[in-house]
Amino acid sequence: MTTKANGNEKASKTTRAKAPDPQWRTSLTCIEPNKILMRGYPLDEIMGRLTFGESIYLLLMGEVPSPGIGSLMEAILVSFIDHGVTPPSTLAARNTATTGAPLRACVAAGVLGFGRHHGGDIESCMQFLDMGLELVRKGTPYKDAAQIIVERCLEAHEPIPGFGHRFHTRDPRAARLFQMALELEIEGHHIQMIRAVELVAGALPEGQAVPVNIDGAIAAVCGDIGIPPEIANALFIISRVPGIAAQAQEERAREHPMRQIDPKEHMYDGAGQRRLPDKRR
Amino acid sequence: MTTKANGNEKASKTTRAKAPDPQWRTSLTCIEPNKILMRGYPLDEIMGRLTFGESIYLLLMGEVPSPGIGSLMEAILVSFIDHGVTPPSTLAARNTATTGAPLRACVAAGVLGFGRHHGGDIESCMQFLDMGLELVRKGTPYKDAAQIIVERCLEAHEPIPGFGHRFHTRDPRAARLFQMALELEIEGHHIQMIRAVELVAGALPEGQAVPVNIDGAIAAVCGDIGIPPEIANALFIISRVPGIAAQAQEERAREHPMRQIDPKEHMYDGAGQRRLPDKRR
Amino acid sequence: MTTKANGNEKASKTTRAKAPDPQWRTSLTCIEPNKILMRGYPLDEIMGRLTFGESIYLLLMGEVPSPGIGSLMEAILVSFIDHGVTPPSTLAARNTATTGAPLRACVAAGVLGFGRHHGGDIESCMQFLDMGLELVRKGTPYKDAAQIIVERCLEAHEPIPGFGHRFHTRDPRAARLFQMALELEIEGHHIQMIRAVELVAGALPEGQAVPVNIDGAIAAVCGDIGIPPEIANALFIISRVPGIAAQAQEERAREHPMRQIDPKEHMYDGAGQRRLPDKRR
Amino acid sequence: MTTKANGNEKASKTTRAKAPDPQWRTSLTCIEPNKILMRGYPLDEIMGRLTFGESIYLLLMGEVPSPGIGSLMEAILVSFIDHGVTPPSTLAARNTATTGAPLRACVAAGVLGFGRHHGGDIESCMQFLDMGLELVRKGTPYKDAAQIIVERCLEAHEPIPGFGHRFHTRDPRAARLFQMALELEIEGHHIQMIRAVELVAGALPEGQAVPVNIDGAIAAVCGDIGIPPEIANALFIISRVPGIAAQAQEERAREHPMRQIDPKEHMYDGAGQRRLPDKRR
Repeated sequence: MTTKANGNEKASKTTRAKAPDPQWRTSLTCIEPNKILMRGYPLDEIMGRLTFGESIYLLLMGEVPSPGIGSLMEAILVSFIDHGVTPPSTLAARNTATTGAPLRACVAAGVLGFGRHHGGDIESCMQFLDMGLELVRKGTPYKDAAQIIVERCLEAHEPIPGFGHRFHTRDPRAARLFQMALELEIEGHHIQMIRAVELVAGALPEGQAVPVNIDGAIAAVCGDIGIPPEIANALFIISRVPGIAAQAQEERAREHPMRQIDPKEHMYDGAGQRRLPDKRR
Repeated sequence: MTTKANGNEKASKTTRAKAPDPQWRTSLTCIEPNKILMRGYPLDEIMGRLTFGESIYLLLMGEVPSPGIGSLMEAILVSFIDHGVTPPSTLAARNTATTGAPLRACVAAGVLGFGRHHGGDIESCMQFLDMGLELVRKGTPYKDAAQIIVERCLEAHEPIPGFGHRFHTRDPRAARLFQMALELEIEGHHIQMIRAVELVAGALPEGQAVPVNIDGAIAAVCGDIGIPPEIANALFIISRVPGIAAQAQEERAREHPMRQIDPKEHMYDGAGQRRLPDKRR
Repeated sequence: MTTKANGNEKASKTTRAKAPDPQWRTSLTCIEPNKILMRGYPLDEIMGRLTFGESIYLLLMGEVPSPGIGSLMEAILVSFIDHGVTPPSTLAARNTATTGAPLRACVAAGVLGFGRHHGGDIESCMQFLDMGLELVRKGTPYKDAAQIIVERCLEAHEPIPGFGHRFHTRDPRAARLFQMALELEIEGHHIQMIRAVELVAGALPEGQAVPVNIDGAIAAVCGDIGIPPEIANALFIISRVPGIAAQAQEERAREHPMRQIDPKEHMYDGAGQRRLPDKRR
Repeated sequence: MTTKANGNEKASKTTRAKAPDPQWRTSLTCIEPNKILMRGYPLDEIMGRLTFGESIYLLLMGEVPSPGIGSLMEAILVSFIDHGVTPPSTLAARNTATTGAPLRACVAAGVLGFGRHHGGDIESCMQFLDMGLELVRKGTPYKDAAQIIVERCLEAHEPIPGFGHRFHTRDPRAARLFQMALELEIEGHHIQMIRAVELVAGALPEGQAVPVNIDGAIAAVCGDIGIPPEIANALFIISRVPGIAAQAQEERAREHPMRQIDPKEHMYDGAGQRRLPDKRR
């Protein structure tokens, strides 16, 4: 489906030849006058029928997700939505907000902090699990394969990808994601592998023992539902942007400009712990 | 609920005094060891029970949305998710991707383009509608108020905020959003106002007549469901980030590095127009 | 001087028509095979003959600066090069660096913080001085004009643009810039105006008295050497980028990743105060 | 030299204990009331005595450069200052400018494009030269070492780092930099190495032959004047920021907002080729 020369507001006024032969292609969104097709589906038909989470999957993967995968997508996107004021990316956003910069600048500054050490190491995690699955395919039991790949990390003095957290000894988000995958009968090899590693890593001596974290859980789930690493990386960014935006808004709404932001000097004064309304549980 | 000195990985090793008196406050997310409360709700309880769209509303507005407002939130977030390769913000992201920069840099570059002329003028739009509603509160019928505020724009040689599009003469996303608001019985004064303006603006002479666009529709709907302008601004960014990420990924996956990107020389080669599966409609 | 279809690496391989009629124009840099002209001067001729500071003036203003203006340019660019670890823009850069992001991401995050409250209000400053110069042109003595425009700010409860500093009671950079302008016989109306305001502002009651700051000094000097506000804005960014880069490098070189950066908990351990070598003074 | 609790505007009003023990250190800039020391030198003393280029070296390297190194620094910084409208980083900046975003957002967007393929591969270049110098240290003549390392690239189907250009067959900036290094008697092993590679690479068969480019020249010169790779990376960013700023300014000054920017449809309409005034040559 060829698009006409779109978006050029001077098209009608320029004495130009017809649009040149197309040189490159896109398969995401087709724009024609009064029609917007996202992966072939009219956007106004998607609105009200697919959720934002399902639409994100459709846009990134090209097809509407099954109900089970759709539920996991929502959960993945919710899991990373915010983590308080202390992540460096959030502090970068708040420091930008305190200078009076507009919201988009604060979000951009925050997004730049998702890298190697911070929600951006899906690749390493998936490669780590694949190493273990390679052994499993050759006949090694999961728990032995897990032992082997964990030992490789320890010998190389490398952290175990997808494990450890600067604050939690049991990441509630990871546990919940695994539980959902089990209930939705989507648990596959990657999740089996990481749960085996979870046992090995948790049994290490005090000081070395590490829990699985949300990065690892998301990597394993994505592996089992067929989301490749580069797209899984995108999910972290998409998920955290609302959190960064909310943090920047709060900075501007509650604090005076050009303040010195000390992450250790804050306290939480929001809603006390509460449960979702009955019909939501 | 006071947070302990969180996130400081050296906490146990430093001979430091107890955490100083908190100097500033946050009401968004409470982090404690093994517990993450988002607006008071445990994140692992939200996962699997609220969608990403509903969670975004909860995080930004502080409360779980009603089903009707939740549906509108999903639709708002879906409506702006992508608009093809030609928006300047998308081109900024693709140009960054072609240099080999990581995804987060491409997303940041794209986000920086959401400003005055491009999905970032909710304020003007809401002020424009408020001007009309001011007259309505004093007794002026909607259609006369609409006539008055449109004429003010024309006399000042200013574009009508929330109207016009460089490509569409009827923005399908705006029409759908209004239809949903009506069906969900959420249509209120702001939507009534903008629909009155829609009639006036559409009846202008050829060359001056402009359709309502998605920015205007979102501004009106947000006005009627109580989302303030600064948070409505955030919704544009949150919505478009998946699109920017998908465009950057496609650039890197399909094109060679350091290419000259000509927006006019592309064509769409994705899925042909299709309908959602029956049970989704 | 028309550029041929430049930069398109497939030019020789594509069966494309000759380059279409040029639609837009640039007057900055002309690129032809093996030739780079910056404002008409061959770049390899500029190298070794103009300094970086002089070249920046040439690129932004279109002509080689006179020796006096060149000296002021260097001084302006040096004056804002860094201000330690506490500016929020610098903290945004350091927080990005601690996540392991590459240098360009740290610089980008830092640059986003130059806005309304932070080195980006040249416009207000120049408008403020122009208000006073308007009165002077009508016959009001400088010191009376200064009194009037300062009082306007106080009555409107607005800060005096270009005055005040969160840390210095006498900004040494501003004093030095004025001294140089005097010595180079470049002092003109804008500088006279701001020096008159300096006296008025300094004579205000305790708690209200404010010193001129480097933003104001740069605004006044730029006004007198004919650099318009939008280009003066650029000078702040250009000047501070080396500082942001150095701060990000130091963060990565000396600190462990993902640390909590508390601006109040640092100390300076660099070179002690020293003087430039004799032949430099 | 300990800094007092600086930058906290509420310091006088808060009933807080004295500043906590410093946890981290910086050796770049010391800020005290009314005093700014950059690497130990008072900033107001540097202003007017060191150029911006010399100050950049001082800030990044910690010492005032010798006259010869200072001249090379200026030339390095001038060499990369701009390269017309076609680099993807420049297009990202222009696309951001056309949305009405402020200058700092345009600069940030442009800076994000300096990566692997685009002025950010100093590391590879320096490693490549070091490979050759390793052989030279063991007794291999320069030209044989050059032959060997070039062949390694060809066999691995890898481009030769620091060689090739999408537009120039002889990069005038590289030639000039080598000439200056020779005249200033600063030419050392790295430059000798790359010049040997230049001969080998230029003698390859048609289609394979590549010229040295400015990235390679800067890498070699930095190697010989002792600037480490990570700081050399910073020089590319610092150098190009004025160009990005000028391009963004021109976009906003000359073009209408939200236009479709086609890099192939521009022409240069600036100053014709001209020579620097006599006393500058």
